[in-house]
Amino acid sequence: MHRLNPNILPLSGVMTPALVVDAVALEENIAGMALAAQRTGVALRPHAKTHKSPEIARRQLEAGAIGIACATIAEAEGMSAAGIGNLLITSPVVGRDKAARLAHLHRRSAMIAALDHSRQVEEIGAALTTADAPLSVLVDVDVGQARTGVVSIEDAVALAQHIRAEPRLRFAGLQAYAGNLQHLIDAQERQRAAAEAAKRVGDVVSRLQAEGLSASIVSGSGTGTSAFDSRGGPYTELQVGSYIFMDADYGRIRELDGTGLPYERALFVIATVVSVNRHGQVTVDAGTKALAVNGPMPDRFVGVANGSSYAFSGDEHGTIRLPPGAPQPSVGARVLIGVTHCDPTANLHPVYHVVRGDGTLALWPIVGRYGSAGIA
Amino acid sequence: MHRLNPNILPLSGVMTPALVVDAVALEENIAGMALAAQRTGVALRPHAKTHKSPEIARRQLEAGAIGIACATIAEAEGMSAAGIGNLLITSPVVGRDKAARLAHLHRRSAMIAALDHSRQVEEIGAALTTADAPLSVLVDVDVGQARTGVVSIEDAVALAQHIRAEPRLRFAGLQAYAGNLQHLIDAQERQRAAAEAAKRVGDVVSRLQAEGLSASIVSGSGTGTSAFDSRGGPYTELQVGSYIFMDADYGRIRELDGTGLPYERALFVIATVVSVNRHGQVTVDAGTKALAVNGPMPDRFVGVANGSSYAFSGDEHGTIRLPPGAPQPSVGARVLIGVTHCDPTANLHPVYHVVRGDGTLALWPIVGRYGSAGIA
Repeated sequence: MHRLNPNILPLSGVMTPALVVDAVALEENIAGMALAAQRTGVALRPHAKTHKSPEIARRQLEAGAIGIACATIAEAEGMSAAGIGNLLITSPVVGRDKAARLAHLHRRSAMIAALDHSRQVEEIGAALTTADAPLSVLVDVDVGQARTGVVSIEDAVALAQHIRAEPRLRFAGLQAYAGNLQHLIDAQERQRAAAEAAKRVGDVVSRLQAEGLSASIVSGSGTGTSAFDSRGGPYTELQVGSYIFMDADYGRIRELDGTGLPYERALFVIATVVSVNRHGQVTVDAGTKALAVNGPMPDRFVGVANGSSYAFSGDEHGTIRLPPGAPQPSVGARVLIGVTHCDPTANLHPVYHVVRGDGTLALWPIVGRYGSAGIA
Repeated sequence: MHRLNPNILPLSGVMTPALVVDAVALEENIAGMALAAQRTGVALRPHAKTHKSPEIARRQLEAGAIGIACATIAEAEGMSAAGIGNLLITSPVVGRDKAARLAHLHRRSAMIAALDHSRQVEEIGAALTTADAPLSVLVDVDVGQARTGVVSIEDAVALAQHIRAEPRLRFAGLQAYAGNLQHLIDAQERQRAAAEAAKRVGDVVSRLQAEGLSASIVSGSGTGTSAFDSRGGPYTELQVGSYIFMDADYGRIRELDGTGLPYERALFVIATVVSVNRHGQVTVDAGTKALAVNGPMPDRFVGVANGSSYAFSGDEHGTIRLPPGAPQPSVGARVLIGVTHCDPTANLHPVYHVVRGDGTLALWPIVGRYGSAGIA
C-alpha cells in the first residue's frame, strides 16, 4: 500500500480533479539526484519546465543545484518573482518583446540564454544597454533532436564569434540537449546514443577551444541519460527535470542492471468516481483536461484494486477498468492516479496539493503558464 | 489565402504562442448552426466545454440558443459570474462540496443537472433548502459511450421516480449524449449509429411516459450527428460544441453528400519561428503545452507554404516541415496553425485573441479552467 491515500484528512477536502504531490517521494528524488551528481562531480541545473514551481526550485537549490533551467521567459519571470536566481533559458529567445523581457529579468539577477542564430544575438544585444552587465550566452548545439541548435561545428564557431563580438553579451559555453534519447527504454541503447551525442559536443568544445573560445559551461542531459552524462564530460551541468516526479513514461525506463530509474513516483491526480453503472468499470472525473495525453496510460493507482487500468473518456472523464472480481468503488470514492507524462500534466493545473511527511497539506502554486501574468 | 494573416497589425503585438479566433468564421458558424436548427424546429443548447467563453456563449444565446451546457461546476460558475443563465451541467455532480456549489448557482439562476445515480439525487436534494425553487434534473442515459448514464430502461425509470419523490428536485427529462459517434468520419455510418441511439432514447421516453413521467427535455447530440439528430426526435435540444471552432479532427468528418461539415475553421494558434538551422523545416514555439495532442496533426497554416506539415517536438516546440522548394521562413516569422482538437487546446490558454471583421482585436477570457477561481 502506498503511503498516500486519497481518503486521508488533508486530501478529503480537495476539489477534484487536482494535482497531488507526495512530498516524501519528492524530497527523496531531489536528494537522490543531488547525491548522484555529487559523486561524479557534475553540477545540476534542474529544469523548471517539469514543475513550474518556485517551491520545488528552492528545494533543488538547497540540495546543491547551481541554478535552474527554464523553457520560456514566462517560467523565468515566475521563478524570478519568487526570488529564484541563476536562471538559464533553454529555448532561443526570439522577438523584440521577449528580448526586452529577458533584459528586464537580467537586471534583477544575471541570466543565461541559449541561442542558435545571429538574429537572436542581435535582438538581445539591442535590448541591453551599456549600463547592463553583459548577459551570458550559450550556443545551442543540435545533437540529433532536430529541434533547436546549430547543426555544424562551423556554425557553432561562427555564432560563438558573433556573441564574443557583441559587447553586451558574453560567450559562456554550449547547450546540447538530446531530448530524443531521454525516453529510450533500453539502457544500453540509451547509453550508446548518449555517448555519441557527448562525443559530438566534445568535438565542438575542442574546436571552440582551438579558436580561443572557452566553453566554461556545457549544459545538457536529462533524467534518462543523466547517469551516463554525469561521467567523463563534456557536460559541466545537467538539466534534469522529470526525476522529481517520475511518471508512467519514465516508469518504463530501465537502468543498465535491468532495474528502473532510482526515483519514485511523486505526482498523482486525485479524482472522484462519478459513475458506476457499468459492471467491471467506473468513471472518474479526470480526463484529457486533467492528465496529459502524450504518455503511456496511468499504471499506478491508490484507491482501486491492483491491476486496474485507465483509459481516457473525453475532456472531463476517464474509465478505470477493474480486474476480475475486484470490488467496485462507490459513487463519490476517491482515487489517486499516477500521471501519464509529468510536465504537460502539471501544466494543466494551477496548484500542487503537497502532502508532507507529517500528513499535513501545503499548496504550491504553478507559475509561468501561458498568459498567467497577463489578462485575467 | 486565408483572410487572417499572422502579420496583420493587431496580431503583431501578441506574445506567442497564443490562441487566435477568426471572428468572421466564428459568427458564420454560430449563424449557420442556428439556421439549421431553426429549419428543423429543434432547440440549441451549445456546449461551453468547447470554448469556456462567456462572450461566445452570449453570441450563441443571441442567435437563438435556449441555454448553455457546461461540463463542470467551474464552467457554470464562470458563465454565471458573467451573467449567462439557463445552464445545464452535463456531467453528474458528485460530492457534498460540489452539490453545495450547484445549489449556490441555482439560487442565482435556475439550473438543470444531469444525474445517473441515486446518491447524486440525495446529495443535491440535501444541498437545497425548502426556500429554494426545485432544481430541474435530467436522467442521464448511456446510449453506448459507456462513460456516464444509466444503462437499462428499468434504471432510468427508477431514477426518474426517485427524482420525482425528492421534493427539492423536479424531474425534467433525459440527457443522452453519444459522444462516441460524433467523430465517425463516414456520414452513412454516423447516421445509422445516431438513428440507433435515438431509437434507444425514444424507447426510454415512451416507457417513462407510460409510468406518468413526462420528459419535457431530451438533451443530447453534438456537432457530428446534429444534422441527423435535429430531425424526427426524440431530442428537444442539441448540445453542439465544436461547430463554432472546428479543428483538424472535425475537418475529416464528411456530410452525406461527401462534403465536409458546413462550418469553417475559426481557431488557430499563433506561433513564432524560433529556429531555422535545418533544411526543409523550421521550429516554432508551439508544442504540447500550446496545442492539444489528442487529435490529428494540424493541416491548416497561414504564413508558411501550402503543403506544410506539423509535428510535435516537445512541450514548447513544434516542427513545421516545408514542401520541396518552399521558401524557408526566417527566425521571428509568425505562423497561424489550425488547431488539432479544439476543446482541450482552448483549455491550455487563458484568453482568445479575437480578430474581428474590421481588423481590430478583442481579448476574450477563458473561464472555468481547473482552479481558476481558486488559489492563484
